[in-house]
Amino acid sequence: MKFRIEKDTMGEVKVPAEKYWGAQTERSRNNFKIGPPASMPLDIVYGFAHLKKAAAYANCELGVLEKEKRDLIGKVCDEILEGKLDDQFPLVIWQTGSGTQSNMNVNEVIANRAHEIAGKKIGEGAKTIQPNDDVNKSQSSNDTFPTGMHIAAYTKISKVTIPGITQLRNTLNKKVEEFESIVKIGRTHLMDATPLTLGQEFSGYVSQLDHGLKALENTLDHLSELALGGTAVGTGLNTPEGYDVLVAKYIAEFTGLPFKTAANKFEALAAHDAMVETHGALKQLAVSLNKIANDIRMMASGPRSGIGEIIIPANEPGSSIMPGKVNPTQSEALTMVCAQVMGNDVAISVGGAQGHYELNVFKPVMAANLLQSAELLGDACVSFDIHCASGIEPNHKVIKQLLNNSLMLVTALNTKIGYYKAAEIANTAHANGTTLKEEAINLGYVTAEEYDQWVKPEDMTGSLKKK
Amino acid sequence: MKFRIEKDTMGEVKVPAEKYWGAQTERSRNNFKIGPPASMPLDIVYGFAHLKKAAAYANCELGVLEKEKRDLIGKVCDEILEGKLDDQFPLVIWQTGSGTQSNMNVNEVIANRAHEIAGKKIGEGAKTIQPNDDVNKSQSSNDTFPTGMHIAAYTKISKVTIPGITQLRNTLNKKVEEFESIVKIGRTHLMDATPLTLGQEFSGYVSQLDHGLKALENTLDHLSELALGGTAVGTGLNTPEGYDVLVAKYIAEFTGLPFKTAANKFEALAAHDAMVETHGALKQLAVSLNKIANDIRMMASGPRSGIGEIIIPANEPGSSIMPGKVNPTQSEALTMVCAQVMGNDVAISVGGAQGHYELNVFKPVMAANLLQSAELLGDACVSFDIHCASGIEPNHKVIKQLLNNSLMLVTALNTKIGYYKAAEIANTAHANGTTLKEEAINLGYVTAEEYDQWVKPEDMTGSLKKK
Amino acid sequence: MKFRIEKDTMGEVKVPAEKYWGAQTERSRNNFKIGPPASMPLDIVYGFAHLKKAAAYANCELGVLEKEKRDLIGKVCDEILEGKLDDQFPLVIWQTGSGTQSNMNVNEVIANRAHEIAGKKIGEGAKTIQPNDDVNKSQSSNDTFPTGMHIAAYTKISKVTIPGITQLRNTLNKKVEEFESIVKIGRTHLMDATPLTLGQEFSGYVSQLDHGLKALENTLDHLSELALGGTAVGTGLNTPEGYDVLVAKYIAEFTGLPFKTAANKFEALAAHDAMVETHGALKQLAVSLNKIANDIRMMASGPRSGIGEIIIPANEPGSSIMPGKVNPTQSEALTMVCAQVMGNDVAISVGGAQGHYELNVFKPVMAANLLQSAELLGDACVSFDIHCASGIEPNHKVIKQLLNNSLMLVTALNTKIGYYKAAEIANTAHANGTTLKEEAINLGYVTAEEYDQWVKPEDMTGSLKKK
Amino acid sequence: MKFRIEKDTMGEVKVPAEKYWGAQTERSRNNFKIGPPASMPLDIVYGFAHLKKAAAYANCELGVLEKEKRDLIGKVCDEILEGKLDDQFPLVIWQTGSGTQSNMNVNEVIANRAHEIAGKKIGEGAKTIQPNDDVNKSQSSNDTFPTGMHIAAYTKISKVTIPGITQLRNTLNKKVEEFESIVKIGRTHLMDATPLTLGQEFSGYVSQLDHGLKALENTLDHLSELALGGTAVGTGLNTPEGYDVLVAKYIAEFTGLPFKTAANKFEALAAHDAMVETHGALKQLAVSLNKIANDIRMMASGPRSGIGEIIIPANEPGSSIMPGKVNPTQSEALTMVCAQVMGNDVAISVGGAQGHYELNVFKPVMAANLLQSAELLGDACVSFDIHCASGIEPNHKVIKQLLNNSLMLVTALNTKIGYYKAAEIANTAHANGTTLKEEAINLGYVTAEEYDQWVKPEDMTGSLKKK
Repeated sequence: MKFRIEKDTMGEVKVPAEKYWGAQTERSRNNFKIGPPASMPLDIVYGFAHLKKAAAYANCELGVLEKEKRDLIGKVCDEILEGKLDDQFPLVIWQTGSGTQSNMNVNEVIANRAHEIAGKKIGEGAKTIQPNDDVNKSQSSNDTFPTGMHIAAYTKISKVTIPGITQLRNTLNKKVEEFESIVKIGRTHLMDATPLTLGQEFSGYVSQLDHGLKALENTLDHLSELALGGTAVGTGLNTPEGYDVLVAKYIAEFTGLPFKTAANKFEALAAHDAMVETHGALKQLAVSLNKIANDIRMMASGPRSGIGEIIIPANEPGSSIMPGKVNPTQSEALTMVCAQVMGNDVAISVGGAQGHYELNVFKPVMAANLLQSAELLGDACVSFDIHCASGIEPNHKVIKQLLNNSLMLVTALNTKIGYYKAAEIANTAHANGTTLKEEAINLGYVTAEEYDQWVKPEDMTGSLKKK
Repeated sequence: MKFRIEKDTMGEVKVPAEKYWGAQTERSRNNFKIGPPASMPLDIVYGFAHLKKAAAYANCELGVLEKEKRDLIGKVCDEILEGKLDDQFPLVIWQTGSGTQSNMNVNEVIANRAHEIAGKKIGEGAKTIQPNDDVNKSQSSNDTFPTGMHIAAYTKISKVTIPGITQLRNTLNKKVEEFESIVKIGRTHLMDATPLTLGQEFSGYVSQLDHGLKALENTLDHLSELALGGTAVGTGLNTPEGYDVLVAKYIAEFTGLPFKTAANKFEALAAHDAMVETHGALKQLAVSLNKIANDIRMMASGPRSGIGEIIIPANEPGSSIMPGKVNPTQSEALTMVCAQVMGNDVAISVGGAQGHYELNVFKPVMAANLLQSAELLGDACVSFDIHCASGIEPNHKVIKQLLNNSLMLVTALNTKIGYYKAAEIANTAHANGTTLKEEAINLGYVTAEEYDQWVKPEDMTGSLKKK
Repeated sequence: MKFRIEKDTMGEVKVPAEKYWGAQTERSRNNFKIGPPASMPLDIVYGFAHLKKAAAYANCELGVLEKEKRDLIGKVCDEILEGKLDDQFPLVIWQTGSGTQSNMNVNEVIANRAHEIAGKKIGEGAKTIQPNDDVNKSQSSNDTFPTGMHIAAYTKISKVTIPGITQLRNTLNKKVEEFESIVKIGRTHLMDATPLTLGQEFSGYVSQLDHGLKALENTLDHLSELALGGTAVGTGLNTPEGYDVLVAKYIAEFTGLPFKTAANKFEALAAHDAMVETHGALKQLAVSLNKIANDIRMMASGPRSGIGEIIIPANEPGSSIMPGKVNPTQSEALTMVCAQVMGNDVAISVGGAQGHYELNVFKPVMAANLLQSAELLGDACVSFDIHCASGIEPNHKVIKQLLNNSLMLVTALNTKIGYYKAAEIANTAHANGTTLKEEAINLGYVTAEEYDQWVKPEDMTGSLKKK
Repeated sequence: MKFRIEKDTMGEVKVPAEKYWGAQTERSRNNFKIGPPASMPLDIVYGFAHLKKAAAYANCELGVLEKEKRDLIGKVCDEILEGKLDDQFPLVIWQTGSGTQSNMNVNEVIANRAHEIAGKKIGEGAKTIQPNDDVNKSQSSNDTFPTGMHIAAYTKISKVTIPGITQLRNTLNKKVEEFESIVKIGRTHLMDATPLTLGQEFSGYVSQLDHGLKALENTLDHLSELALGGTAVGTGLNTPEGYDVLVAKYIAEFTGLPFKTAANKFEALAAHDAMVETHGALKQLAVSLNKIANDIRMMASGPRSGIGEIIIPANEPGSSIMPGKVNPTQSEALTMVCAQVMGNDVAISVGGAQGHYELNVFKPVMAANLLQSAELLGDACVSFDIHCASGIEPNHKVIKQLLNNSLMLVTALNTKIGYYKAAEIANTAHANGTTLKEEAINLGYVTAEEYDQWVKPEDMTGSLKKK
C-alpha cells in the first residue's frame, strides 16, 4: 500500500495515499481497534455533511469565510450526501466520547477533497482549505457531534421509523374494517372469556400504534434543538454574533426538517436527554409491537394443535416434510428487534446519566444505539407488514368452532332462565365435555329454538364498537 | 384470633372477625405469600375508592343502582380516602396479574363496611350491599384495575413528582441568577477547558429539568384515558349505554384531574403503554438528575484535595474527627433513586411487552414500579432541594484560583501576539509548573499590564448568555 | 409525644423519648424523607447485629474491649436478632450511599439498650457503652455496611431463595417421572412439530433450574468475602493485628455460613461486584422461571378454546359465571416477580458501575434490590409449587387428540412408502381438513392395519430420554 | 447481474449466478430487509462450519454418510474457516428466530461449493451433495443454531475476551508493585479521607478483574454444552445411536475447546440460559471496568484545575491551542463499551425469557449481542491497556501536595495530644485555610519536630497491605 505523510500538532503520520483522511483520523484508527472498523454510522457522517455545509454558509454570510471556500466545502458535503465518499470514514463508535475524531475525519476529508476539486493534488502545496481553520470554523467537536447526531436521528425517524410504523398501522387498520363482523372468543389470562370481534381485537393494536406514534412525535421538538453555536463549553466562544440561529436555519433548509438552535447550549453539550427522550418513545413502540406480534403468532399457531384462528402468509419452507407448517417468522424477526430496542434503551440511559460538567462523553454510543433502534423498528414494521400483516386471513371455521364450543356463552341465558340454571348447564357441559346447547336441552331448560334465539355471540360484542 | 365465616362460589372461608374483607381476599392472602404482606400500594386502593364511588354514581344516574346503595358505597369510599380503612387491604403485588383480588378486596370491604354503616353487624343477615352485584356493578377487574392504577399514577405525578421536581428546578434557577457573574473554569472530558459562569453551568441543569417536566407532561394525556366501561374484554358487556363517558366524568370531578374515557377499550385492557410512556419520562428525569447530582458532588469535593468550587450544607456529622468533611449525602440519596428508577423502567417494559390477547396480566407490577419511581423522584428532589441545592454557595477563592491557574486562558493572547507565541507561553508554563503570566513576561512577549488587560476570563464566557 | 435530648458532634437533637436511637438516626429521619419510612430492610439490620456482636468478640479477644462491654453488646445483638427491636430502625434506603446512618442507628440502639440492660435509664448518666468508641470499635460505616449486606444477602439466598427454588425443582422432577410415558405433540415456533413426552418437556424445566441453582451457588464464594477490617478506606487503619480474619471467623460461627475475610479490602469497599455477580444469577433464574411459568399457562389455557393439555389447580374463583375457568394466577404472580428481578438487575448494575475512588456509595440501593429479588424468587417458587406445580395433571384426552390430529406424524411413513407419497397424504389431509389415516387409506397407499402399525408417536420420542 | 435458478419445496427462485447460496437463502434476503445486510455475525458462520464438518465425520463414522461426501463437506468447511467464503453469507440477524435460514445458507453454500470442488459447475447436473439430506443430516436448525452460537461464543470469549481482560489485569498488577510505596490521600464520598498507597488503590482494580474473570470462567461449563443431537424438538429423532456424544467429541477436537453434548437437549433448544449466564458475567466485568476507567480519568483530570494525581499517555491532539490537555479518550471508549454491554444484557435477558414450548426463537439476537459484548470488552481492554494503563505515571508532586494539605492527617495526633486538641488544630486550619502543621505550632500543642515525627501518612496505610 502507498502512503503519504500528513501532520497535526503532534507530528507526522503515514496515511494511505488514496484516502482523503488526514493525521487525526489515522491516529484514531490506530488507537481504537475496538470491534469491526467503520462502525460509526454513516448517518452521523451525513448529519455532519449537512452541518459543515450550513456552517460554511453561515460563516460566509457573517463575513468570516470567503465565498470560494464556502462553495468548495459545500461541494464536498454534497458529494458525501450522495454517498460518493462512504469509504472515507473508517472510524469506530468506540473512540473519544465526544466524537472528536469523527469530527476531524469529516474536516480532513472535506479539506483534502476540496483541494482536489480546486485542481490540486492531495498532499501537494498548501491546503486550499484548512480542516480546523476553515471547515471547523465557529465550531467545536463538542457542539458538532451532538448536532450531527440530532440531524441523523431526526432524519432516520422521519424517513424510516414513522413511515414504516405507519405503513403497518394502516394495514392493521384495514383489517379492523375487514374483520369488523367476525365474532370470536375473547381470551383473558389466556383463558376463554366473552366474545368480541376480530376487528375489535385489531383495533387495540391500531390504538397502541397511534398512541406510540404520537408519543414519538412529542419527542421531536426536543430533538430538533441543535447544539451548534455552543462551541467548546456552551458559551459560543469564537462564534460571530447571530451565528447559532443562522446556522440552524441553514440546516433546516438543507434537510427540510424543522431544526432550530437550542435555547440552552450548556444542556445541549453536557446532556443528551433529547436522545433519551426520543429513544424512550421508540422503546414504548417496541413494547407495543412485541404484544402485537405475539398475539398474531399465537392466533396463527397450529395448524392442528394450536389456536389457528388466523392464517398468515407462507413465505418460506417451514419444513420439508410437513405441509401447512407456516412458521411465524416475521413475528420472530420483529420481536427480536423489540428485544434489541429494549436493550438499547438501557445503553442510552446509562450513557445519558453519566455526563460530567460541561460535556457528556457517551455521544457515539448513544447515537449509534438510537439510530439502530430507529432503523430496525421502521424496517421490521415494513417487513412485517408486507410479508405478514397484509396477508392475514381469518380461519372462519376455527373461529366459529372455538366460539360455539365456549362455555361462557351461557352468560346469555342468565336473564332468561336465571343464574343458577345457567350455571348448572355450564357445569354439566364442562363435566361431560359436551356443548352448552346439548346440556341445555337435555336438562329441559330450553328448547333448541330458544337456545339458538337467545345465545347469539354477536350480540355480546357490546355497545363499545371500535372507535 | 376470632374468625367469622365468609363464602364465595368455591365455598366457605374463615376470615379474621374484626376485618371487613371477605372470602376472596382471604384466599388471596393464603395463596400468595410472596414478599412482605400488604405490598399492594395504598395509592391503588385510593384509586379504587374514587372509581367505585364514581361507578355507583354513574350506575345510579343511569338507573341501575338504587340511590341508597350509591350513598352507602360513596360513604365507605370516602372513609377509605380519609385513610380510615388502611389496614383492611392486606394483599400483595404478586397476585393475579389482573389485580382481580385487589378489586375483590375493595368490593368486599365496601360491602361489609356499608352493612355496618347501615346499622347491621358484619356477617349477620343478608348483605345490604353485594360485593359483586352492587359494588362491582358495570365493572370487571379487567377494567377497574387499570383505571385504579391510572388514577393513582396521575395523582402521584401531579401531587408529588411534578411539584417536587419543580421545587428543585426553581431553586436551581435562583442559583442561575445568583451565580450569574461568577466566572469559573469550564471542564470537558473532565479536563480544563475555556471558562463559563457558574450561573451558565446551572442554567444547563434548569434546562434539563424544564425539558424533562415537559416530556412528563406530554405523557399525561395518554395516562388520563380510563379503561372503565370496557368490562371483561373491552366490549363493555353489561354496561348501560353512556356509562363509560359518565363514569370518567365523575372520576374527573372527584379527583379534580382531567380524566376521560379511553377511546379504545381493547388497548386499555390488553396493553399498558400509557404506563410505559409515563415511566419513560420519569426515567428521563432520573437520567437528568443523576447528571446534576453528580456534578454537584464533584464540584463540592474536597475540602482540600478535591475540586472544592462550591460549598454544600453540612447536615450531619461526616466524621467525628475531621472538620470540614461534608459528605454529599443528598447527591447520594438522589443518585440511588435514579438507579432505582432506571431499573424500574426495565421491569415496566418487560411487563408491558408481555400482554396476551385481551388482557395484560402484569398490571400490579407495572403500577407498583411506576408509583415507586414517581414518589421517590418527587421526594428526593424536595430533600435535595431543602438540604442541599438551596444552600449551595460558591467558594470564590477556589473558583478564582483554579480559573487563574488555567493554561487555557492563553487563548486570549492569540489575537494579540499570534498563535505560536501564545502556544510557547502555555507550553513553558506547563513544563515549568508556572503561571501563564510569569512565563508571558519572562519570555518578553507581553508586559504585566498588557497581560492583565488582555487576559480577562470574564470576556470569554461568550455571547451565549443563559437563556 | 415525649422527647429526650441526644447529642452528636453537631449539637443537640430531640429524639422520641421511648426510642433507643440517638442523634444521628434522628437527623437522618429528618434529612431523608424519601418514600415510606423504615424502608431499609430489616435483613440488613440483622446482618449488622451479627457483625457488631462478632466485632465485640474479636475486639475483646484482641484486648481492645472489656469483656463486660462485649457481653452487653452481644446481648442487645441477640435481642435484635430475635426481632424484639424491629421498631427501632426507622431509616430509609435513600440516605447516605455508604449506609453510614444505618450503621449509626445500630450503634445508637445497641448503646442505649445496653445502658438499660446495665440497669440505667436512657439519657441518664454517662453512657455505659459508647456508640462510636465501643460498638463501632475497629469499624467504619464503609466496611460495616458492605459486611452487613453480604451477611443479609447470603442468608436470604441460603434460607429462602435456594430452598424455594429447590422445592419447585423437586416437584417438577417428580412430574418428569409421572409424565414419562405421556406422548404429546411437540411445538416449535408455536407450531405443531414432532412428538415428545410430557415428561421430557418437564425435564427441560428441571435442567434449567439445576443449571440456575448451580450458577447461583457459583457466586456464593465471592459473596462470602467480608469487607470488615478494612475500616475507612480499606487499609484497616485503627484495627488490631489479626482482627479481620478473626471477626470473619466469629461471623461465620454466629451465622453458620462460610464467611471469610476479603483478600482485598480495597475492592470490598469501593466496588460491589459480588452483589452484581450474585444478582446476575438471580436474574438468570428469573429468565428460566419466566419460560417455565409461560409454558405452563399456555398448556393449561382453555378450557375449550385454548391448548388445554394440562389441568392446573383451581385456587380461587376465576369467574362467578363460568365453571372451568381457572386462571393461571400463580404463573402470573411468578412472571411478575421475574419482571421485577429483571428490573432490579439494572438498578444493581447501574449502582455497581458508579463507585468512585475508595468507596461505592450505592450500597443501600444495591442491597435492597438484591434482597427483594432473593426473597420474591424464593417465595414465588414456593407459592407456585404448592398452589400450581404440584397439582398439575395431564388432560389425557386432549393430549391424545392433538397428537393424533397432527399432520406431522406422516414422517413415520417416509421410510415405508417414500417421501413423496407421504407428503401427498399430508397435503391432502391439510387441504381437506381430514386425518392422515383417512387420506392414507383413501389414496390407497396403506391399509388401516399398516397405518396403525407404522404410525406410532411413542416411537418418535427418540433415543434421547430424559437425562 | 446474472442469475441462475435454484429450487426448494416452494418452487423456483432466481439467485445471483456467482453466489453459492440457494433458494432458501435468497428467499430470506428478500423477506427480511431489516437493517444493513449480512448482519448475522461471521463468528456464527464459523461455528456452523465446525459443526457441519463434525456432523459429517460423526455421520460417516456411524455409517450414515459416505466418506467421499464427508471429505467434500469437510473441505468446504475448512474454506469457510479460512475466511475464503465470507461473502457468501448475506443474511441478517432479524430473520427466523431459530436461525433456520442461516443454517440453510450454510447448507446451501457447502452443497454448491462441494459440487464445484467435485469438478462440476454450479446449477448443472444433480447436486453431488444435497443441502438437506447430506449437509444437514442428523441435524435440524433447532439444534444446529444453538450449537453454532455456543461454539462462536466460547471461542470469542477464549480468544478475545479473556486474553484482552487478562492483559489489562496484568498491566494493572504491575502498577500495584510500581506504586507500592506511593502514599496518597484516600477519598470516600469523593471527599478527602485517610491515606493509602496508589498501589493499594490499583490492587482493588486487579481484585475486581480477578473476580470477574473467575465469574466468567464459572459460566463456561454451561456454555460448553451443545444442543447438537436434539434435532427438531430435543428427542434426537432421526439421529443414529451415539451420535450426540460423538459429534460433540469431534467439535471439541476441531475447535480445541472442551465442548460436550448437553445432558438435557430439551433445555438446550427451548432455553438459552447458558447465554444469559455467560453474558451476566460479561456485564459484571463491564460494571468493574466502568469503575476502573472512571477512577483513572478522574485521577488524571486537570492538568491544573482537576485532581491530577496521575498522568496518562497523550495519544492524539486534545486541543490545538492548549498544551497539556490530554483527554482520557481510552476511558471514554471503554466506558461507552460498558454502557453497551449493560444494554446488551437486557436484550439477552428479554430474549431468553420468552421461549415457548420446545423452542426459543430469540437465538440470533441473543447470539449477536453476546458476541458483540465479548469482542468489545476484549478489544477495549487491549486498547485501554496499550494506549492508557501501561503508560500511567504518578504525578509525585501533586500526590504529595494533596496528601500533605489534608486536614485528616490530624488523626495521627489523637494518641499524642488527645482528640480535643487535635480537633481544635484541624478546625482552625480549616477556618483559616492554613496547614495543620502551622496551626499545630501556632496553638502551641506541638513543635515542628514533633509534628514531623508524629504525622507520617505512610504509617497510616495500615496493616492490610495489598494481598
